[in-house]
Amino acid sequence: MSDTPTLDDIRAAAERIAPFVHRTPVLTSSSINRITGCEITFKCENFQKGGAFKIRGATNAIRCLSEDQIRYGVATHSSGNHAAAVALAAKMRNTTAYTVMPSNVSRVKKEAVAGYGAKITYCEPTLSARDSVLNDIVRDTGAAFIHPYDNRLVIEGQATTALELLEEVPGLDVVMAPIGGGGLISGTALAVRGLSPRTKVIGVEPEGADDAYRSFRSGTLISAAGPSSIADGLLASLSERTFNILSRHVNDVVTVDDDTITDAMRTIWERMKLVVEPSAAVPFAAILSGRVNITGLKVGIILTGGNVDLNRLPWMNVT
Amino acid sequence: MSDTPTLDDIRAAAERIAPFVHRTPVLTSSSINRITGCEITFKCENFQKGGAFKIRGATNAIRCLSEDQIRYGVATHSSGNHAAAVALAAKMRNTTAYTVMPSNVSRVKKEAVAGYGAKITYCEPTLSARDSVLNDIVRDTGAAFIHPYDNRLVIEGQATTALELLEEVPGLDVVMAPIGGGGLISGTALAVRGLSPRTKVIGVEPEGADDAYRSFRSGTLISAAGPSSIADGLLASLSERTFNILSRHVNDVVTVDDDTITDAMRTIWERMKLVVEPSAAVPFAAILSGRVNITGLKVGIILTGGNVDLNRLPWMNVT
Repeated sequence: MSDTPTLDDIRAAAERIAPFVHRTPVLTSSSINRITGCEITFKCENFQKGGAFKIRGATNAIRCLSEDQIRYGVATHSSGNHAAAVALAAKMRNTTAYTVMPSNVSRVKKEAVAGYGAKITYCEPTLSARDSVLNDIVRDTGAAFIHPYDNRLVIEGQATTALELLEEVPGLDVVMAPIGGGGLISGTALAVRGLSPRTKVIGVEPEGADDAYRSFRSGTLISAAGPSSIADGLLASLSERTFNILSRHVNDVVTVDDDTITDAMRTIWERMKLVVEPSAAVPFAAILSGRVNITGLKVGIILTGGNVDLNRLPWMNVT
Repeated sequence: MSDTPTLDDIRAAAERIAPFVHRTPVLTSSSINRITGCEITFKCENFQKGGAFKIRGATNAIRCLSEDQIRYGVATHSSGNHAAAVALAAKMRNTTAYTVMPSNVSRVKKEAVAGYGAKITYCEPTLSARDSVLNDIVRDTGAAFIHPYDNRLVIEGQATTALELLEEVPGLDVVMAPIGGGGLISGTALAVRGLSPRTKVIGVEPEGADDAYRSFRSGTLISAAGPSSIADGLLASLSERTFNILSRHVNDVVTVDDDTITDAMRTIWERMKLVVEPSAAVPFAAILSGRVNITGLKVGIILTGGNVDLNRLPWMNVT
């Protein structure tokens, strides 16, 4: 596929976004290694600008637009971290961000987006309402649409996370990332294939939003119908683009249930003293629950974000 | 005072404990800097072994004992992080730790200490009961008593935190640390005086346990009567030893109330994505509440620990 980013594209993206994003630290924990029986390195994108890796893709996409193309701003739909990332990346390029958010979005996520100065339009929480409102905005304003994941430049940007991880920690046997719409897992797989071909890439999905799992197993793109999970950053379905990259370059896709995600999230908070959101805990949940067999291996996990409502922690409902 | 650790003593302690403790990272946050108007570097002892800086002092003290001196184990009293640190440091030296804890200690802290294999004896939650039970244990077992702060070697160990901070971040105008019994602030002040004499040292205490504040202002050692604060790691009173170091080498002591500590803790969780305990948030609380005037300055803050019961977060009661 000529439209698939190469390692050189990813390296160019890393250089392009470097002035605008953090090179996040990697952390390890001997107690986590003892619990799991493997050697895990966590890439801490919860420390990233905006609290999630999403700023990488948004910045890469927005920096690649010409002055003409961003004259009327940028637009996106997202209920969370991508909206905040586009808002922040637009602000850093002195242009306007229009974001379409479902009317039931949490206060915390709304405030983050509003805090970066984006113009928010609320819509009914359905895909068709979202697309229709977004199309109206693009037509009326002339803003450039930055899709959350079905966008080559966004994928290149997300790929820089794994690029940094592999540069810092050579010799990983496995790299794991969560799957929502597939932007991060696509970028991760492409970076790993380019830099460390023998390293396996495993994507992890919530059971309640397992379209990538079913698509990967069946070899056919299947969309999620009524997805639901506490990992609310992972409810989107793959696009043709991300499905194609996933099919070719990801070694396995597994799923985890919400209780395991909650346990994994809490374990990361307790043992690593890191605030991560439920979506970020999904790959570690697959290890905790034995869904992947990685005993004795060197594993890299992308902790995707740390934006969580501190008044509503999932274990408060289950304990 | 010949019994006061010198910079060379602190450097020797750092070398002695290096194989057994983490060199913790320092982190910064542009949003925290924007909120406060200064340039803050956080020294992340919440990532330390055992979840708090206390392992530094405990390890230094226990490593300095001869084989003969540790033949019958070590003993301490502490309701929290120092007990866990002594337990862990004793385990790393293959000796037994006896810890005296108040009967009302939280499940989380009890489990941490028990998890490192210490023998716990519970006592009534009073100073006299604690001392009497500890004395019995020391008499009956021959264990070496490792005081949480009134111990030169413990102070040397705690001082290595500021040593690392100053090595990594030169040119700090101010270093801030919380005050409980004064072990950390004493070590911090001695390290700063040795390495960077122009840097000011500010200690911060909860209003409900303000013995150091009153002692510092009056020039006389005053013990806390019935101390109470959500910063439960800071309820101890200064000893003669820590009061003397504080009086000579600390530039100022200020206090903060529990609501401000809660706000500061929450802000650190939200903005920095770090799990810190209430005691660790106390210096930042002094900045948030304007108790210190540090606009435009380069400030180092020791985030002392991250051991917190995730089922009982202080803002859950106030929101």
